[in-house]
Amino acid sequence: MVAEDGIWHGGDIAAARALFPDAPKPWIDLSTGINPIPYPLPKLPLSLWQRLPGADDEAALLAAARAAYRVPPEADIIAAPGTQILIDLLPRVLPELVAAGPVAVLGPTYAEHALAWRKAGARVIEVATLTGTAGAATVVLVNPNNPDGRCLPANDLAALATRCAGRGGMLILDEAFADFTPVASLLPMLPPATIVLRSFGKTYGLAGVRLGFAIGEVAPMAALRSAMGPWAVAGPALRIGALALADTRWLADAGTARAADAARLDALLSPLGQIVGGTTLFRLLATPDAPSLFAHLGRHGLYVRRFQNDATWLRFGLPGDAAAWTRLEAALASFARGVVSA
Amino acid sequence: MVAEDGIWHGGDIAAARALFPDAPKPWIDLSTGINPIPYPLPKLPLSLWQRLPGADDEAALLAAARAAYRVPPEADIIAAPGTQILIDLLPRVLPELVAAGPVAVLGPTYAEHALAWRKAGARVIEVATLTGTAGAATVVLVNPNNPDGRCLPANDLAALATRCAGRGGMLILDEAFADFTPVASLLPMLPPATIVLRSFGKTYGLAGVRLGFAIGEVAPMAALRSAMGPWAVAGPALRIGALALADTRWLADAGTARAADAARLDALLSPLGQIVGGTTLFRLLATPDAPSLFAHLGRHGLYVRRFQNDATWLRFGLPGDAAAWTRLEAALASFARGVVSA
Repeated sequence: MVAEDGIWHGGDIAAARALFPDAPKPWIDLSTGINPIPYPLPKLPLSLWQRLPGADDEAALLAAARAAYRVPPEADIIAAPGTQILIDLLPRVLPELVAAGPVAVLGPTYAEHALAWRKAGARVIEVATLTGTAGAATVVLVNPNNPDGRCLPANDLAALATRCAGRGGMLILDEAFADFTPVASLLPMLPPATIVLRSFGKTYGLAGVRLGFAIGEVAPMAALRSAMGPWAVAGPALRIGALALADTRWLADAGTARAADAARLDALLSPLGQIVGGTTLFRLLATPDAPSLFAHLGRHGLYVRRFQNDATWLRFGLPGDAAAWTRLEAALASFARGVVSA
Repeated sequence: MVAEDGIWHGGDIAAARALFPDAPKPWIDLSTGINPIPYPLPKLPLSLWQRLPGADDEAALLAAARAAYRVPPEADIIAAPGTQILIDLLPRVLPELVAAGPVAVLGPTYAEHALAWRKAGARVIEVATLTGTAGAATVVLVNPNNPDGRCLPANDLAALATRCAGRGGMLILDEAFADFTPVASLLPMLPPATIVLRSFGKTYGLAGVRLGFAIGEVAPMAALRSAMGPWAVAGPALRIGALALADTRWLADAGTARAADAARLDALLSPLGQIVGGTTLFRLLATPDAPSLFAHLGRHGLYVRRFQNDATWLRFGLPGDAAAWTRLEAALASFARGVVSA
């Protein structure tokens, strides 16, 4: 989806179809970091669709999320219809952060963070290193980072939160890709003045469900809750989330299987350039041939993610079945032949 | 659900269970205005759950909503995960309305409207008549009204919108219960400075889906869209909404059937007091016996809606099947015998 604000997102096959109308069908969508093997959908009683989501359903979801994400008991947690709306609401419901001073976004990263703070009137500085955040009151970072997988040590993040707190700011930590690398999460030791965002849809392969979480101190969570009102999360999403987040066995097995997929993808991509990072759910390839590789794959019905900030990057999500692997392998091989013969 | 702010809502059977732990099961929930006969759920392809909601899915939903609600082509429309979040966001994304002067809420009505404007810092006046709104810049009203079914003429509403516009305010018109009485909707002639809210879940009996709409001029719709960001509505909700809103035959048949149910309910209730209003989906009974009738029904496993503003009111939703009608009839008969014998 190319949003109105011009930010490129993965996942909108309509955009791929428009770019490459003659590509063979079906499209293979590798443009997102969504697990291609979803958590098995449970049977959903009709009542979950019929009635307003109940307080008991929401409580069950939040209890499962607390356990899955190892949320300290003194921290508050809220659920939302996806993490995106939390990213957009945060700067609006916490105007004191906009007023406290510059907001540093550690980039390059998911572009909606910087946009949301700018829309709320904040002075946003996009910086490439932790040192670059020195002048900021509030710091926003994605950990592990999308798209390069950069993962910062917990001690550095805790020190950063302390510095932000001293300036009337906060540390906003988007842990959308931390499920498969739990050691990367700051949650078990959540420092003061820190808000952690967690996403359900990517890990569990159910991005259409729309479910995300914010975790932090009571006051900012109450502000977010108040801005959304009751029942923002659909009844089926509450149930699916509660079951999936309690299924530690599925998470462990999926993590092992997807890590193997990621290694297989690295082996395919590394002849074409340098793997400069990634997570269990996507790999980032750097090559001067990126624009022609993007077009070659598109003409073969394979949609990958390119980047506005760096034309040499391509991000590859994981193929979801044997047919997708075969088509990717064939397209990469024919590209390599073309480059060699050119 | 009793929200943190103390507003009573219908629909949370956990609250009924806590009040009447010894009531016979299953609970019959008559505490909402949700159609008890839902639109038949379509088959939902797994892809709707897996991928991010696509721009094409959202476009299909909005096209169906435009036709169903008769939205003028020059008006803008946005979808949200339920109308409630729009109610909460409106005062926050349109601070110029908070600044323009008092906000009048024509009451008694759905209590979340006044609360949302108060939370955003507006001076809210709750008034009982259109004349009472004379001092306001912005006017909020539910039409047809919940719980009393009051329905104001389109000409009066258009004049009201013009007056609001002249004071830098707006008319916020919640048409949550207008689907079965389309003549009540202002949408075909949408005046300037007017925002109309429409709800999917009540009419189609699918409140757990979370789907609502705002319709109005481009600038306020852009402000709402910006506050939620992309993908706020779940993939399955986009599909269900698009199919249901295009099904004009189902709507007509459901309207006829529910109107017959409402007449049957009136016949049952009128010996116990006065039917002071309602819509096709609920009836409002006024009787000094309301508190004892609420308790009597609760002990019989029938949950109805009482009101903080008027202890003589009870709102009855429609029973959804023969068993529910039988239990309601029996409980009302035993209450009438008790009142007579007392």
